[in-house]
Amino acid sequence: MSIRFYNGKVLTLAEGTTVIDRGEVITEGDSILYAGPAEGQEYSSIIKDLKPDREIDLKGNLIMPGFKNCHTHSGMAFLRSMADDMKLDDWLNKQIFPREALLSGEDIYHSTRLSIMEYLTSGITGICDMYLDPDAIARAAEETGMRCVQCGGLNNFSQSVDKLNDWYERLNTGSSLTSFRLGIHAEYTCSEELLKRVSELVHEKKAPLYLHISETEFEVQGCRERHEGLSPFEYLNKLKLFDYGAVVFHGVHVSDEDLRIIKDKDISVVLNPASNAKLASGIAPVSRYLKEGVRLGIGTDGPASNNCLDMFREMFLTTALAKLRENDASAVDASEVLSMACSGGARAIGIPECDCLAKGKKADLIVIDLDSPNMQPLNNILKNIVYSGSKSNVKLTMINGVIRYEDGRFNIGDEPENIYREVKKTVDRINKEIG
Amino acid sequence: MSIRFYNGKVLTLAEGTTVIDRGEVITEGDSILYAGPAEGQEYSSIIKDLKPDREIDLKGNLIMPGFKNCHTHSGMAFLRSMADDMKLDDWLNKQIFPREALLSGEDIYHSTRLSIMEYLTSGITGICDMYLDPDAIARAAEETGMRCVQCGGLNNFSQSVDKLNDWYERLNTGSSLTSFRLGIHAEYTCSEELLKRVSELVHEKKAPLYLHISETEFEVQGCRERHEGLSPFEYLNKLKLFDYGAVVFHGVHVSDEDLRIIKDKDISVVLNPASNAKLASGIAPVSRYLKEGVRLGIGTDGPASNNCLDMFREMFLTTALAKLRENDASAVDASEVLSMACSGGARAIGIPECDCLAKGKKADLIVIDLDSPNMQPLNNILKNIVYSGSKSNVKLTMINGVIRYEDGRFNIGDEPENIYREVKKTVDRINKEIG
Repeated sequence: MSIRFYNGKVLTLAEGTTVIDRGEVITEGDSILYAGPAEGQEYSSIIKDLKPDREIDLKGNLIMPGFKNCHTHSGMAFLRSMADDMKLDDWLNKQIFPREALLSGEDIYHSTRLSIMEYLTSGITGICDMYLDPDAIARAAEETGMRCVQCGGLNNFSQSVDKLNDWYERLNTGSSLTSFRLGIHAEYTCSEELLKRVSELVHEKKAPLYLHISETEFEVQGCRERHEGLSPFEYLNKLKLFDYGAVVFHGVHVSDEDLRIIKDKDISVVLNPASNAKLASGIAPVSRYLKEGVRLGIGTDGPASNNCLDMFREMFLTTALAKLRENDASAVDASEVLSMACSGGARAIGIPECDCLAKGKKADLIVIDLDSPNMQPLNNILKNIVYSGSKSNVKLTMINGVIRYEDGRFNIGDEPENIYREVKKTVDRINKEIG
Repeated sequence: MSIRFYNGKVLTLAEGTTVIDRGEVITEGDSILYAGPAEGQEYSSIIKDLKPDREIDLKGNLIMPGFKNCHTHSGMAFLRSMADDMKLDDWLNKQIFPREALLSGEDIYHSTRLSIMEYLTSGITGICDMYLDPDAIARAAEETGMRCVQCGGLNNFSQSVDKLNDWYERLNTGSSLTSFRLGIHAEYTCSEELLKRVSELVHEKKAPLYLHISETEFEVQGCRERHEGLSPFEYLNKLKLFDYGAVVFHGVHVSDEDLRIIKDKDISVVLNPASNAKLASGIAPVSRYLKEGVRLGIGTDGPASNNCLDMFREMFLTTALAKLRENDASAVDASEVLSMACSGGARAIGIPECDCLAKGKKADLIVIDLDSPNMQPLNNILKNIVYSGSKSNVKLTMINGVIRYEDGRFNIGDEPENIYREVKKTVDRINKEIG
């Protein structure tokens, strides 16, 4: 299958953030065959004998790499709007945990599919997902065609080192769409004994660890009390959990020493601005991270804590909250945010093959409608996307060379009504069981 | 013209925030004839002889009052994305002011129409607008059918007391859609002599004053230095500018004494969370305002400072930033935010006839598509709207009984392409003149 997108503006993000005014993108199978100006020698030699299966007139709209939602819990969609405006403790203990205890793999599969629909409407072509049942998540991602880097969420109460090992062996074979990475929930939910066994697994696999870290001040203080004054970064580093790198979610409350560890161990940090605001966790030091050259991605967090799976909201918040934090309206430029949301995010979660539009890269891309009031005038397309862009501007989402969303219609192997109905069944059953 | 919306969920906001599961809304001319359950005596007596011109099957979707964008500068749309990520001083003096000096009324008319298109896509049925040329704004609002409460933006450099008086006399006659209120830009742009003359006008008209106030800490400090230690609220109150009430925009940095004045003078406060974040101005004390019973509305501010004219973003930010400020995830409940955005906002800017769906109220309403992944499951429709809602969920926007936006199409007396082209002409001409 080959698709030619012509008559459009192209933002490749391959080198800088320049928008090519008259460009084309051509896909072949799951990859990009060409992305660049609609002229020149390379273009001519490709277009000469090209027989695409479909040609799409972009009508001057923008084609660009898809967004990477670098931290989420897709399977929590059934919990949306069920537990907001609550203290964090009440939220977790009274609402979330009792309901999660009643979840089946099938429930998680359906909620994950619902979240994937939302990702597609928001131009998200890749996710980094952590939830209870990796088999169910992998199945949902494969069937709907979502690129999904999964990680374990091991803690004292669910999953196990053996299970992590099993998923790592089974879920990393045979698919270019889904993969599984070693992961734990967080320091505060894992015993030292458990963490030491995870450290052994990390060294056995020579693999980076994915985890929540330093999301709240309370968590950092608690860790220091539990572990002789060490912060979560310091403590886990002492246990040699970062010896093959790490991908950490949140990183809101970090010290100078934490930053030293992040740089020393080449750790990627995933920002979750909306969730951190809504749960009153704080604002991450984005300017500082950028200054130190830390690899950054952006995530929505799960639909129970955000509650929206919308990268446009996250992009705006990434810069707007940084500006508030630094008391400086010039902090964190839009182009840096857009890079984080697309290419930086891909590299942060370990899918560099999806970081930009260039020959040989995966065909994970989106088309943005510029012919909308919020995208006019076209003074600066990048800033339009970051500051006034909206999921309503997403015309098309392609993953691995397959168009999964186009003009409001989904191509995900099932009808939306079926997915909505199944998630409602989960909600109704659990509400009934809880009483 | 009578339109019947049937087979839907209805949120009237007339009494509390309960959603009627099976309801109808019937409009007659510019007003609501019925809004309530599809049963009962009142409903039966109305439906019996009803011959609507059009019947719209809501298919289970939600109908509710439109959002009120209580502070904006619509005519600044030509500046979108032209001056972001800059210090406030550079933004104003190097980018905004030189360009505004070159604006014509015709330019403002076209940019205002572009902004109105964006309002419609976001379910906004009423705006409170302040910009340079009230005649051009009124014309744009009348032609496109937008409900527009305008106010003066008098300062030392533009407009005059005589002009305010003239607009007040001319632009408050003969239209139920547009009106003009007395207004100044802000304390820091007005001489005391000018403010005293405005105070006379306020007393002559016995009318409330609309103005920016206490947006930044710098502004408040400057006022205290200029005026014997008085805050902007204290100083303007001393000049008797609030004797007939006021509608103030921003109100980010307020003291206990300021709050006393706000309550004493029955002043409405309009929050602008996105703009205040993006320009690093701060976070308004929303929890405190609510506790004190202050009448609150929400605004986007103008497209050069936000840059998005999207009430969904503002609603999320109103509560999320309050949660951050108070370090409390339970601060400012979603239902309070939704009320501010619709009914509270209408009362705040002085159009109480548009505050809810009830017999005799103006037919300013929207239809929200619940059949979208971000609105599923329907655990709590109110929280869905505030936390995961998006302009992509707006199916229909009606103002004054006329449908102005439906399924992505506009009914505003002109074609989108023409409006985009005219705004581009403004941009190109001014860029050329500036060189």
